Amino acid sequence: MKIIVDAFGGDNAPLEILKGAADAHKEFGYDILITGDEGKIKACAAENNIDISSMEIYHTEDVIGMHDSPRSIASTHKNSSMAVGLQLLAEGKGDGFVTAGSTGAYVVGAHRFVKEIPGIKHAGTGAVMPNDEGVFLMMDCGANLTCTPEVLNQFAIMGSTYMEKVMGVKNPRVALANIGVEETKGTETLVEAYKLMSQQDYNFVGNIEIRDIPKGGADVVVCEGFTGNVILKMYEGVAGVLLKNIKDIFKTSAKTKLGYLLISSNMKDFKNKMDYKKHGGAPLMGISKPVAKAHGSSDARAFKYAIKQVADYADSGAIDIIAKAVSKE
Amino acid sequence: MKIIVDAFGGDNAPLEILKGAADAHKEFGYDILITGDEGKIKACAAENNIDISSMEIYHTEDVIGMHDSPRSIASTHKNSSMAVGLQLLAEGKGDGFVTAGSTGAYVVGAHRFVKEIPGIKHAGTGAVMPNDEGVFLMMDCGANLTCTPEVLNQFAIMGSTYMEKVMGVKNPRVALANIGVEETKGTETLVEAYKLMSQQDYNFVGNIEIRDIPKGGADVVVCEGFTGNVILKMYEGVAGVLLKNIKDIFKTSAKTKLGYLLISSNMKDFKNKMDYKKHGGAPLMGISKPVAKAHGSSDARAFKYAIKQVADYADSGAIDIIAKAVSKE
Repeated sequence: MKIIVDAFGGDNAPLEILKGAADAHKEFGYDILITGDEGKIKACAAENNIDISSMEIYHTEDVIGMHDSPRSIASTHKNSSMAVGLQLLAEGKGDGFVTAGSTGAYVVGAHRFVKEIPGIKHAGTGAVMPNDEGVFLMMDCGANLTCTPEVLNQFAIMGSTYMEKVMGVKNPRVALANIGVEETKGTETLVEAYKLMSQQDYNFVGNIEIRDIPKGGADVVVCEGFTGNVILKMYEGVAGVLLKNIKDIFKTSAKTKLGYLLISSNMKDFKNKMDYKKHGGAPLMGISKPVAKAHGSSDARAFKYAIKQVADYADSGAIDIIAKAVSKE
Repeated sequence: MKIIVDAFGGDNAPLEILKGAADAHKEFGYDILITGDEGKIKACAAENNIDISSMEIYHTEDVIGMHDSPRSIASTHKNSSMAVGLQLLAEGKGDGFVTAGSTGAYVVGAHRFVKEIPGIKHAGTGAVMPNDEGVFLMMDCGANLTCTPEVLNQFAIMGSTYMEKVMGVKNPRVALANIGVEETKGTETLVEAYKLMSQQDYNFVGNIEIRDIPKGGADVVVCEGFTGNVILKMYEGVAGVLLKNIKDIFKTSAKTKLGYLLISSNMKDFKNKMDYKKHGGAPLMGISKPVAKAHGSSDARAFKYAIKQVADYADSGAIDIIAKAVSKE
């Protein structure tokens, strides 16, 4: 298993990425092919005592930034570390690709260099997220702001396959994110999607009320990309504010600090349960080879899990199963 | 100030509604005109020692339920407690109307019986919600699943007026809920709305990232109704799951129970800060008289605040200001 890693994407590049890649090699045994400026990579590794001796480096100096046009990955930035990584994947030089760089550029580049699975109308960003039951996959999280019912149905096929083959969930429950459970609820697109999804082979359990998403009830939550992005960001936003306030409470006085000491180990278990970083990055499903995006703020640990996730995706055979399923449509 | 109250809407009708109305009369001095089955209202008040002696009752036996078609409020259920309350408001028999019944029926009924402010394209549901800074108004929360840029602009005008005149916020900051701060982000509708909103008299501060909504930064958050409903429900859902887990932590052992005792008064302050019920119901802005919907699960306290909110709205003169602003458009 060889994973191609873009060393120059995200807020903490290249340091945290090199650390994460080294840890993934050590812990899981993956071969790593890293793209980016060889001089900078070697200097950073040396300064921080990161063992990159087992890694292949593909040297390229250009980097595509957060403020560059996503489309420039196919033109002025076609030699950027991200673009080169995707091209190496397309050429079969590795089994999967991970970046923490610009989401837009990653989506454009994956389509341009690696291509979609034949029959797939639009690739979609999946994200494995925690809920009160465990985890679920939400898709699309922002690659396609608006979608047709047919595209939502393909997201369901891909999401269901991913949860079964990569995450080991038997007969995954697929739900449509909506503002009510009745099949007449929501926009025209969602009403049509409900009808279409009811007629498929996967385990469609109907609409899931947005309020119930954090509780559980579905293994795959299907939505248009704008909605998915709102759900994802509200998750982060509400949890962030609540946990900050609770932290502040514990810091108020000697009494509350003692209170914290008494519950701290339980709080840590809870934080671990809700830690989305350990579930890795966001696979772009529908692309013909495994590609995933790690959060821009990923630390070494998050990046290590993003590498593991894309390796698991490559190992699962899910892409072949999806290709067969959509060719039957 | 006379508020018309639907005694037969919501999960806890009529008991909690009668209690809330009696409390609103006692605490704020409002006159109350209540609609619904007189026999049941009197029996419930007598059984529960609720003083309704000062209230007028408008007797009607019919009730429009959660499973009735919203449109039936104008036909088979035109004599329901909700429909009658709205008709009494239209006839000038009170200054505002509150219900905890079916949202769909309330929206249809308000348009049908009370009518829109001339020049308003669509009325929108506003909700006053807590954030880490205090409170903000989000609009629309579900009355219009999709909206044109012009409708979003009118929501901004109405929301800004509401926050200034009813909530006392000077020069309210108006933001558009979007998946990024740049003006090119989001759907075509949002890109167009950004342009239009940039040219207005109110204090437009640009896009607000969804993740920042719980933190603060805007007094009015404008969005299409589907998006608003997703934000609202994610707020409830994520907060519910997090607080349940934290509660469970405190219950784990004698040690954690003691931990809770040490921070309990601070936790109560925090819960009070995040308590959306005290901010009342959801005004349907753009209707020519003040109408508001209390949450279906409202208890007496939530209902009391919903009555206060609609009275404040009536008292503020906001509707006249909105009417003038849209006539100038």
